[in-house]
Amino acid sequence: MTSEKGVMLLDFWVSPFGQRVRIALAEKGVEYEHKEENLRDKSELLLKSNPIHKKIPVLIHDGKPVCESLIIVQYIDETWSDKAPLLPSDPYQRAQARFWADFVDKKVFECGSKLWKLKGVEQEAAQKEMIEILQILEAQLGDKKYFGGDIFGFVDVAFVPFTSWFYSYETCANFSVEEVAPKIIQWAKHCMERESVEKTLPDPKKVYEFVCYLKKRFGIE
Amino acid sequence: MTSEKGVMLLDFWVSPFGQRVRIALAEKGVEYEHKEENLRDKSELLLKSNPIHKKIPVLIHDGKPVCESLIIVQYIDETWSDKAPLLPSDPYQRAQARFWADFVDKKVFECGSKLWKLKGVEQEAAQKEMIEILQILEAQLGDKKYFGGDIFGFVDVAFVPFTSWFYSYETCANFSVEEVAPKIIQWAKHCMERESVEKTLPDPKKVYEFVCYLKKRFGIE
Repeated sequence: MTSEKGVMLLDFWVSPFGQRVRIALAEKGVEYEHKEENLRDKSELLLKSNPIHKKIPVLIHDGKPVCESLIIVQYIDETWSDKAPLLPSDPYQRAQARFWADFVDKKVFECGSKLWKLKGVEQEAAQKEMIEILQILEAQLGDKKYFGGDIFGFVDVAFVPFTSWFYSYETCANFSVEEVAPKIIQWAKHCMERESVEKTLPDPKKVYEFVCYLKKRFGIE
Repeated sequence: MTSEKGVMLLDFWVSPFGQRVRIALAEKGVEYEHKEENLRDKSELLLKSNPIHKKIPVLIHDGKPVCESLIIVQYIDETWSDKAPLLPSDPYQRAQARFWADFVDKKVFECGSKLWKLKGVEQEAAQKEMIEILQILEAQLGDKKYFGGDIFGFVDVAFVPFTSWFYSYETCANFSVEEVAPKIIQWAKHCMERESVEKTLPDPKKVYEFVCYLKKRFGIE
């Protein structure tokens, strides 16, 4: 905990969860101090601010920590509510947005990790699962510009960071997102036209370099 | 999907997730039609209303389905907002309530299932984990009446259904919640003084009978 006034983000550059928070803060135009963590030697501040999960991202606002990326994004939306609303105002639409953000949360990261961690038939099963996940999301998107319609919102914030991992997923597991879910690629392009997204997402090649480093560290050829 | 007006709940009596929704609806005084599902032969309505997860509970409000218990409870809180607020109005307190409800969601059910599914050293590890989870929740509760203070709220709704599973956890894995987390037992008693909870939670002995039936079905002695 810090007693300082202002906003601080404990983060790690390649984390899709950290990127969600960066995008939400950029959409709201909130200035903040960015603190890059070394996840192999976590800071005292991170361990004190998130003693339960000990994970980034943590948003520290006027000394008070908020943890878990989707909870942080909702906190940001409710705290800086005068600009760029991320959740719709209608309760049913809000529930739908929460449902799809939760779907991304439960499915994409875990399945994505399997794509580079596993081999052979296990990897093939994960590839099949990822294609299914992407096609479910594509069906939900339909012909809309963003998941919520014309306005960039909660589901977009939750999902778009994973698009900078697509190149790694494709390269490790030998498939093409463009082929299996072309509308998702169109949507990603629309999102990248926003400064909040474009300035946040890392180069997919850099993400892949990081994945290669992880594979080496875990002894995966 | 149904085009009928009104509120319907697709549910299963012993599900802590379904019970969350029943408690929230009772707190708000919402009348609804209760539809008990056969989880081994799910209804067309359930499969159509929750095609992604195919799970209860599903709340169908004026023909529109809402899925995932914590999302449903938030929907109920936002839709019937004139009575018995479940989430605090302050954004930071809301984030804290969401954090602890999410903690319950991620930890209690899965660890609880291990207590009756596993044996030997694996069960011992799960017992140790459950004690840790309960003590983390007890520390968060402190000397407050409810998790949010004097007012029954979101975290209470998320967690209290599991108290009717405590007897099963204790019997299967040989420990006492009262011994390891006495304040949680006190809190459970406070919750049970509320009609919404008392009328919803099943008899712990009936839950245990159900667990014994599951053990038989899964071939666990």
